[in-house]
Amino acid sequence: MQAYFDNSATTKPLPEAVEAVSRAMTETWGNPSSLHVIGDTANGELENARRTLASAFGCRQQEVYFTGSGTESNNIAVFGTVEALKRRGNRIVTTAVEHPSVEGCMKRLENEGFDVVRLPVDKTGQISEEAIYEAVNDKTILVSLMLVNNEVGSIMPVKAAAKALKRAGAPGHVHVDAVQGFGKVPVGPKALGADLISVSGHKVHGPKGVGALYVKKGTRLVSPVLGGGQEDNIRPGTQGTPAIAGFAAAVDTGILHGDLSSYIAHVTEVRNIIRDAVLATDIGAINSGDDALPYILNLSLEGIPSEVLRNYLSEQGVCVSTGSACSKGHRSTVLTQMELEPRRIDSAVRFSFSHTNTIEEARYAAEVLTRAANTLRRG
Amino acid sequence: MQAYFDNSATTKPLPEAVEAVSRAMTETWGNPSSLHVIGDTANGELENARRTLASAFGCRQQEVYFTGSGTESNNIAVFGTVEALKRRGNRIVTTAVEHPSVEGCMKRLENEGFDVVRLPVDKTGQISEEAIYEAVNDKTILVSLMLVNNEVGSIMPVKAAAKALKRAGAPGHVHVDAVQGFGKVPVGPKALGADLISVSGHKVHGPKGVGALYVKKGTRLVSPVLGGGQEDNIRPGTQGTPAIAGFAAAVDTGILHGDLSSYIAHVTEVRNIIRDAVLATDIGAINSGDDALPYILNLSLEGIPSEVLRNYLSEQGVCVSTGSACSKGHRSTVLTQMELEPRRIDSAVRFSFSHTNTIEEARYAAEVLTRAANTLRRG
Repeated sequence: MQAYFDNSATTKPLPEAVEAVSRAMTETWGNPSSLHVIGDTANGELENARRTLASAFGCRQQEVYFTGSGTESNNIAVFGTVEALKRRGNRIVTTAVEHPSVEGCMKRLENEGFDVVRLPVDKTGQISEEAIYEAVNDKTILVSLMLVNNEVGSIMPVKAAAKALKRAGAPGHVHVDAVQGFGKVPVGPKALGADLISVSGHKVHGPKGVGALYVKKGTRLVSPVLGGGQEDNIRPGTQGTPAIAGFAAAVDTGILHGDLSSYIAHVTEVRNIIRDAVLATDIGAINSGDDALPYILNLSLEGIPSEVLRNYLSEQGVCVSTGSACSKGHRSTVLTQMELEPRRIDSAVRFSFSHTNTIEEARYAAEVLTRAANTLRRG
Repeated sequence: MQAYFDNSATTKPLPEAVEAVSRAMTETWGNPSSLHVIGDTANGELENARRTLASAFGCRQQEVYFTGSGTESNNIAVFGTVEALKRRGNRIVTTAVEHPSVEGCMKRLENEGFDVVRLPVDKTGQISEEAIYEAVNDKTILVSLMLVNNEVGSIMPVKAAAKALKRAGAPGHVHVDAVQGFGKVPVGPKALGADLISVSGHKVHGPKGVGALYVKKGTRLVSPVLGGGQEDNIRPGTQGTPAIAGFAAAVDTGILHGDLSSYIAHVTEVRNIIRDAVLATDIGAINSGDDALPYILNLSLEGIPSEVLRNYLSEQGVCVSTGSACSKGHRSTVLTQMELEPRRIDSAVRFSFSHTNTIEEARYAAEVLTRAANTLRRG
């Protein structure tokens, strides 16, 4: 049996997404910027996709920009804001547990002299609202927070960011990296109070190679990418219409026509089967907090190194990850920031779920985990 | 009848490319960075694609990096070089007729204080070798030249760039934007003498949304994109494996197993049919030089505005462009730099060919052009 529980790394594309990608390569294959019938058809495909994303965000069509990945959305949001607002202040507020595509930008900005404040997390991987209010001063040009942490599933109080900026009288933008939240919890300007929201196609059963960035009307951005003016100069370069069409099809099928609350109920059931099996062993521990999004379950079988457990599971057809796929080989920043004991960190693996996972898959993985606890522990 | 002569804007994906994209979404759909069986399979797909591009370039597999577009390849090459070498010099040499994705970077660098020298073109859209030698001094950190101009097809003497840097004792890199040359003339480090080469999937009958960058081993680049370390930190972000697989399939079918010299012979025949029809009218003129790559034919029916001719052709099923799809709405920089008379420029349209165009299509377009010359001219 195969049980894929690495849905935070990537998801299997829906058949509807595969079909839309094929259509955009065989029927609507033109360059959307071309001013002739073949271009017009491609532009129609592109704008339909934009409308779908706008519906999912609850925003205007012109506030949706397509990018090449969640990473690119994050880079454009962070660098684009800083370039636009750098004369108005020097402070940037973020968390200590961002995805490398935000943290990488922060490190570079810090080297350039920006005052980057990284909010620490507690034992559950959570930042506090109070910390946001304390960190934001009147020189703050950007607050960039992830919505759902990619390693432990903690849900950040991002709505406080806009309020904090307002209270401080700061000129800054609010950016939310919603890559791990999209399709799982409500994501849009109303739900998050954000000026900029990053999402990615391949985390919601769409194709890899496409992201989107919500940019609130009137938000000043100076994109780090230069080119021929596509996507209003926010992300120039010929639009990747195949992946964009596939992304929109996945959003249409899985999110707009899906029932997020029934997904979450099902995923909770799946998660609980794994969690209970782990806690039933005498070396099992759960690293995700009780309030974490049930889509992500970080756990340890203490004493069994992460890589050993992951490889054992993989051999039995159960696919999980150690940390995130985006930082292979490094000890998890998130778990370190949570101040877990080193032996807990060194045994951690991440299960991440999709509403497409079945109860049978969960039961199978639970059995394999129980077997692992019995056979892999030091004798 | 439909005749698509806008292949420099984009090309129709080959069936093999469509099939490879589907495979990468249904079979090899994992995250290539994931360390389990599903990730391994995706990584195999990715590395096969890299091997195909390396064969096409005649380089090592580790010298090929996948990006989200030709525009992104150009941005990474230009900004990545400047960030790496800015302490060693201030001069950047380029041409006055680059694609906006290079020219846009140049404008920003100029604003930051870099000494950007733009080589002028002659009446055929060509720069001279001598001008390259004269412009390159010992403080030159980058020479960025396009291989084939996207509007008129002039082929630039890019090989002189490496020699000029060597002669001047300059620390610079040579970057060649080969987007319009790939699959048409030999493109690779040997043929071009370049450290960095940009290409794009959708110009060679692959999908939109993918590019590649050749980076010569040992070349120092500090990428403007920050993230999780994929593609050796040159282009972080989960690789867009569907479009990458499709790109590789198009390269494998159309370039590695294609005969470039038979393509060019066929395209020349197609081009000549159009050219002769234009010259047979008493208002026709050819704007591309005699030495231009036959894949691109820029022409004018003097007195008929570009937009009027393009729309007339489109209504008859003949798809061409005015200028490039990447700069719609602006008067062509290239033709202006070539110092053509304004009335010639205002009548210009670009035909751009593929080896998949047929003689019948060319004859049909020639008829429509003749009809246009007779019916659209001012009475």
